[in-house]
Amino acid sequence: MIFALKRFLIGRPLKSTELGEQKLSKTKALAILSSDALSSVAYGPEQILIVLFTLGAAAFWYSIPIAVGVLILLTALILSYRQIIFAYPQGGGAYVVSKNNLGVNPGLIAGGSLLVDYILTVAVSVSAGTDAITSAFPALHSYKVVIAILFVIFLTILNLRGVTESASILAYPVYLFVLALFILIGVGVFHILTGSVSNELHTPIGTPVAGISLFLLLKAFASGSSALTGVEAISNAIPNFKSPAPKNAAKTLLMMGVLLALLFSGIVFLAYYYGITPKTEVTVVSQIAEKTFGRNMMYFFIQGTTALILILAANTGFTAFPLLAVNLAKDKFIPRMFTIRGDRLGYSNGILFLAISSIVLIIAFNGQTEHLIPLYAVGVFIPFTLSQTGMVVKWIREKPNGWLPKLIINATGATISLIVTLMFFLTKFSQVWPVLIFIPVMIVLFHRIKNHYDAVGEQLRISKDEKVEPIEGHVIIVPVAGITRVVENSLNYAKSLSANQIIAVYVSFEREDAKIFEEKWKKWQPDVRLVTLHSQYRSIIQPLTKFIDIIQHKASEAKFGVTLVIPQFLPKKGWHNILHNQTSLLIRAYLLFRRDIIITTVPFHLKK
Amino acid sequence: MIFALKRFLIGRPLKSTELGEQKLSKTKALAILSSDALSSVAYGPEQILIVLFTLGAAAFWYSIPIAVGVLILLTALILSYRQIIFAYPQGGGAYVVSKNNLGVNPGLIAGGSLLVDYILTVAVSVSAGTDAITSAFPALHSYKVVIAILFVIFLTILNLRGVTESASILAYPVYLFVLALFILIGVGVFHILTGSVSNELHTPIGTPVAGISLFLLLKAFASGSSALTGVEAISNAIPNFKSPAPKNAAKTLLMMGVLLALLFSGIVFLAYYYGITPKTEVTVVSQIAEKTFGRNMMYFFIQGTTALILILAANTGFTAFPLLAVNLAKDKFIPRMFTIRGDRLGYSNGILFLAISSIVLIIAFNGQTEHLIPLYAVGVFIPFTLSQTGMVVKWIREKPNGWLPKLIINATGATISLIVTLMFFLTKFSQVWPVLIFIPVMIVLFHRIKNHYDAVGEQLRISKDEKVEPIEGHVIIVPVAGITRVVENSLNYAKSLSANQIIAVYVSFEREDAKIFEEKWKKWQPDVRLVTLHSQYRSIIQPLTKFIDIIQHKASEAKFGVTLVIPQFLPKKGWHNILHNQTSLLIRAYLLFRRDIIITTVPFHLKK
Repeated sequence: MIFALKRFLIGRPLKSTELGEQKLSKTKALAILSSDALSSVAYGPEQILIVLFTLGAAAFWYSIPIAVGVLILLTALILSYRQIIFAYPQGGGAYVVSKNNLGVNPGLIAGGSLLVDYILTVAVSVSAGTDAITSAFPALHSYKVVIAILFVIFLTILNLRGVTESASILAYPVYLFVLALFILIGVGVFHILTGSVSNELHTPIGTPVAGISLFLLLKAFASGSSALTGVEAISNAIPNFKSPAPKNAAKTLLMMGVLLALLFSGIVFLAYYYGITPKTEVTVVSQIAEKTFGRNMMYFFIQGTTALILILAANTGFTAFPLLAVNLAKDKFIPRMFTIRGDRLGYSNGILFLAISSIVLIIAFNGQTEHLIPLYAVGVFIPFTLSQTGMVVKWIREKPNGWLPKLIINATGATISLIVTLMFFLTKFSQVWPVLIFIPVMIVLFHRIKNHYDAVGEQLRISKDEKVEPIEGHVIIVPVAGITRVVENSLNYAKSLSANQIIAVYVSFEREDAKIFEEKWKKWQPDVRLVTLHSQYRSIIQPLTKFIDIIQHKASEAKFGVTLVIPQFLPKKGWHNILHNQTSLLIRAYLLFRRDIIITTVPFHLKK
Repeated sequence: MIFALKRFLIGRPLKSTELGEQKLSKTKALAILSSDALSSVAYGPEQILIVLFTLGAAAFWYSIPIAVGVLILLTALILSYRQIIFAYPQGGGAYVVSKNNLGVNPGLIAGGSLLVDYILTVAVSVSAGTDAITSAFPALHSYKVVIAILFVIFLTILNLRGVTESASILAYPVYLFVLALFILIGVGVFHILTGSVSNELHTPIGTPVAGISLFLLLKAFASGSSALTGVEAISNAIPNFKSPAPKNAAKTLLMMGVLLALLFSGIVFLAYYYGITPKTEVTVVSQIAEKTFGRNMMYFFIQGTTALILILAANTGFTAFPLLAVNLAKDKFIPRMFTIRGDRLGYSNGILFLAISSIVLIIAFNGQTEHLIPLYAVGVFIPFTLSQTGMVVKWIREKPNGWLPKLIINATGATISLIVTLMFFLTKFSQVWPVLIFIPVMIVLFHRIKNHYDAVGEQLRISKDEKVEPIEGHVIIVPVAGITRVVENSLNYAKSLSANQIIAVYVSFEREDAKIFEEKWKKWQPDVRLVTLHSQYRSIIQPLTKFIDIIQHKASEAKFGVTLVIPQFLPKKGWHNILHNQTSLLIRAYLLFRRDIIITTVPFHLKK
């Protein structure tokens, strides 16, 4: 049943050799990897206006120079990441670049904050998209959390199905969103050029504003640069591209940069020209759309695609998280299970871990994850800074042909990212402080995991000095609960092993019971020695363990091995298991972890 | 840690021989087994008045004849159960009596409805007690469910500690409640006798009332008889009494009957004389107390002990459920685990099952379990009817000395119980219909469980005709994941078993990997045959299972046994387990249930 459901939801398993077919073309990659970045134009410009609004509407013209600043930062980031793509064609996430050039700990800081960030991406984007939907249909408002969780589950299933299949579905909404915004910007600019929009709506650029300060401008800039989250997704995912992967990835990155720049500046410009004021109930994009088209079909088309792309932005997390997790897991900093490809060749453990974590976040914050946005932005700019710095170090170290311009590009990127990061700490400390706790905690955890793996490797390695001592003989202990065919079966097996001694052990809760059993046993199996143990506390495991300890002690002197042969009957149907006390399983689980004893299970399958 | 907590909460384990010390004296038994019955005087009289109130306050005098009816029913039940106690000194619950005299299915109907009923008892009583507390402290109202759950957990811990210890704690509130009500009734009657209460407050007995009907009177009677739930608890719990158990139980039952009759008639009388009208916010007992004492210390003493005893009424469920479950489990109608005594000699599985079920009910009904009361009452009167009928059949069959008066007593009890049951179906069908669904479902389930146990017994029995075929030799399969000390350890064990063939199996996901491994293996273990399997779908279990099937097929021809020797390394700390893929455990779990193969686990304990 469960298997059939799984098959239905995620499709038939794929062969390892089908991996190539799952690779992404440029068009699909653009859709799948840039929904996060592109969707942020839906809220980035608004973030700038909200900060400026504290000084009044007259300050809105500052959004133009701030947008220019964001565009410069975007250009620096795109150029920087372009260089990373060619320098690290195997996937140059912030983790890899920082680790290789700056050392393990900077790498772990970058990797750790990105891991957390992708979880935040999913929670924040899905919540925002759900908000957009429940704003349109207020009746759904009380089901917000459930709707958000359903979206996460939907994305999880898509991603478990595999990369290209999800890309096909995801491509449409992303391109529709881009189309919708281009139409909006085009029609808006046309209205302005034909003079049908009054130019009294906004204060001219350069108008002096009372109370303006560098701090405030930097805060607005930092807020606006939250529109750049998601830019790194492509450089992480190079192995997912069709070959030549780096070239295709670089082209996709450039394309994304251009789209992002156009949409961002278009929205900022229209907002400025229309003199739009940020409101809590209606988004800036929605206001622009209403002024441009009125509340007609086009308006709802723009709102609808915006809601869709916000939800799909979460998909960037689903693409990037598992790949980053693989990198960390290969270096033994997180559990090995993240390196395993599932039935459909995706890294299903990473996908599931991300899904569960983000659902937990959505539930914990009751679907209101907006105030996680600054935390999320800072979690992006820390790795930005580290990876760009890493590239700077790389250029200085390696000095390849034409390294100076490259160095300048990355140095610019690193500096601006660092400034943005510091801005966040300076202007929004009350929202970003958790980073200062969870990053150190994660680093410690990463190192403890790595230490464990190293210790295990050490202990499992075969050394030529230490020879394994051969086992000279066998003592077999068979715990028995009655005179049944299950026991008979196990004894039959034990006898066939030509052991030196077979001991059946019976644990009784009452003295008389033991006597009766001993007599029965003598008649049934006169050649197998029976030991009865009395249990005052009605525990089978305690007296059995004590007995095993004694036998093991004796056996070890003779270099004999002790094997516990456990008779186990297995019911035919799953639900029957709760009808039986599962003593065999308990004994095995207890002894396996606590004693160094070989345990053999002799199954007896019931036929009805 | 968990063990220490368990020890702290429920105390040190007790020896089986300490069982006698856990038996109940009469005073403790009265407290522990009658809190349910006694607590019902807190709501029984009110139930009568609520029904009569539909005709107006003039009809309240009917509460006196109705109360007489309830007292007659009570007398009949007490006398009937007294006879049951002597006839079934081993514990004569409705289940045992019905099964022995009427047949298996009537027994199961009685037992099944009582099992469900005890769960309802706990949920309803604890919710009612919590209501009493939150009425006094409205600030706690929004924590109602949490408080109720905490009370259930508290009772669970008490009961896991053992019978007598919980009795010591529970005895005080029960006796305080009885004392409080006696003071209330005494002072009330004194006021009336001294003439300080106007006798204008009530209509005289016999006043004609418009619209009175037999149906309404029967409905009021049925409602009032819900005060008799809990009467059967003592006859279920005879084995818990100090010897001579039946005699002590009978005395306790009589004592309880007298107390219940006195309190019930006292409350009904005062309510009538004071002309009290049922209100939704204030209980009848509370109104009587206020009229008698005003809002002073005594008033709060009565309210406090009432709240306490309502919560403790749940304890009757905790005492009776596990004992009934043992009876059903011994007859194989419910899982065997209910017969196991825990560390403190209580039937801990029954206690835990009851606790979890009632917590689920409390959560499901959000702490508002009042409308479960009729369901609960009907679940009591069905087994009442069946057990009394059973006794009638018994007397007719056995005809002991002086059987005729005994038969008359039980026949009266059976008839009245049947009438009350029918009244519930007639007058409150909308609330009691679920009984008609869950009883048949439970009966079917009981029979399926019993059939399974019988089938298992059949299959495990040793028959002399069928001889076990001796195993002529052994093939050992060792799945290997690398060249490590864990594998070396397992091979060492396999070699010591003098098997006819040892086959190491390596599952590779890539063709090249297999070749490299084969070469390494040849150098390391030239004398052990290695088979490499290629897995297209990255599953280890599938190809391994196929291989085992082939080997088993070949081996069975030669009467050889096939043993799978699984190397397993065990990390030192629990949390390390999530860092390893647990392939060994998965292989074992899969094959154990699906194939008839002997599985040996060779542990390799890590030291750090």
